[in-house]
Amino acid sequence: MPGKFITFEGPEGSGKSTQIRLLAEKLQARGNEVLCTREPGGTATGEAIRNILQHDAAGEPLGERAELLLFTASRAQLMDQVILPTIEKGGWVLCDRFIDSTLAYQGFARGMDIVTLDALNDFAIHARKPDLTILLDLDIEAGFRRLEERYSDSGESHDRFERETRDFHHRVRAGYHKLAQREPQRFAIIKADNDIETVSSNIWAAVKGALL
Amino acid sequence: MPGKFITFEGPEGSGKSTQIRLLAEKLQARGNEVLCTREPGGTATGEAIRNILQHDAAGEPLGERAELLLFTASRAQLMDQVILPTIEKGGWVLCDRFIDSTLAYQGFARGMDIVTLDALNDFAIHARKPDLTILLDLDIEAGFRRLEERYSDSGESHDRFERETRDFHHRVRAGYHKLAQREPQRFAIIKADNDIETVSSNIWAAVKGALL
Repeated sequence: MPGKFITFEGPEGSGKSTQIRLLAEKLQARGNEVLCTREPGGTATGEAIRNILQHDAAGEPLGERAELLLFTASRAQLMDQVILPTIEKGGWVLCDRFIDSTLAYQGFARGMDIVTLDALNDFAIHARKPDLTILLDLDIEAGFRRLEERYSDSGESHDRFERETRDFHHRVRAGYHKLAQREPQRFAIIKADNDIETVSSNIWAAVKGALL
Repeated sequence: MPGKFITFEGPEGSGKSTQIRLLAEKLQARGNEVLCTREPGGTATGEAIRNILQHDAAGEPLGERAELLLFTASRAQLMDQVILPTIEKGGWVLCDRFIDSTLAYQGFARGMDIVTLDALNDFAIHARKPDLTILLDLDIEAGFRRLEERYSDSGESHDRFERETRDFHHRVRAGYHKLAQREPQRFAIIKADNDIETVSSNIWAAVKGALL
């Protein structure tokens, strides 16, 4: 029996990586094989691409079409090398960001043409969409507060997306909601400003309802 | 007055880099500003992409769609950062490989869909095609003999394309000829198996006829 493919979407600070780990534990406890991955990255090629994307090469500004094509290249490689083979063998794939990040960030927030982005996404994934997309929905100001706490603790520098304006992140959030309206069967919108265990329970309920 | 954009196409071993240098010298002697660049590469981002393309990351096989998207990302960045600004300032750009390499290698030789490749190319270059494309046409066996001499001298290892079969390179050559038939105004086919000075004179005649 083929496995399942679940993606996690939402702004920085919404708790995607924590929630992926918790869902993986629940699925593993049920006896499922689970592979957790992320975009951009998840393959040796994808991690090399991630490095280009997150740290402008040699201080050179990265054009928006080059950026989009790099994300899409990482996605194609992840799909072919990791996601499709894992599903085929019956495993579950949990992926931190996927096609909807491109649509929300490059499309709805930056204004690139959605029809072009849909075509590029379909090309990258052979039109094999996720079985379920968990949208961790978070008030923008709450997200920024969470990120500021994280960075004041760790001293890490903000990456390119995190340097964008608040207005940009409002457009991202509105974009995600439009995507969920466009494919209500695929999306589960989960409020991310509850405590971690509550969010995890709500995600588990959505997964059970849709896929188990 | 805007400058001009000339691309050089042809198989490995056809002498593209030598001929680009000689054409640049002739144009500079006329007083033109000339910028020589190459694909993939030509920008800091593009050179990082070139590194991924030419040396499979961590021994991982690179999928054909990921490869195509990486070439296209490098192209978009080169167009935005280098080619368009140089032409706008009146400079001449000479580029070693461009859109036709994608069509000849990924399209005609590997069998990817030409309509998709045309769409990706147009997206990367804002549909600003080269003013002139010099196709250095070389008998496949002669090309391999040239490459073998180069490698036996330098001890360099063959890169991914150079490890392809002779049959693959025959399809590349046939593909280039189809592209030249499709846009005869843009292409000048120059026999590359003459001595360097003769090839250079023939290129110069083509450039003068088309652009000066």
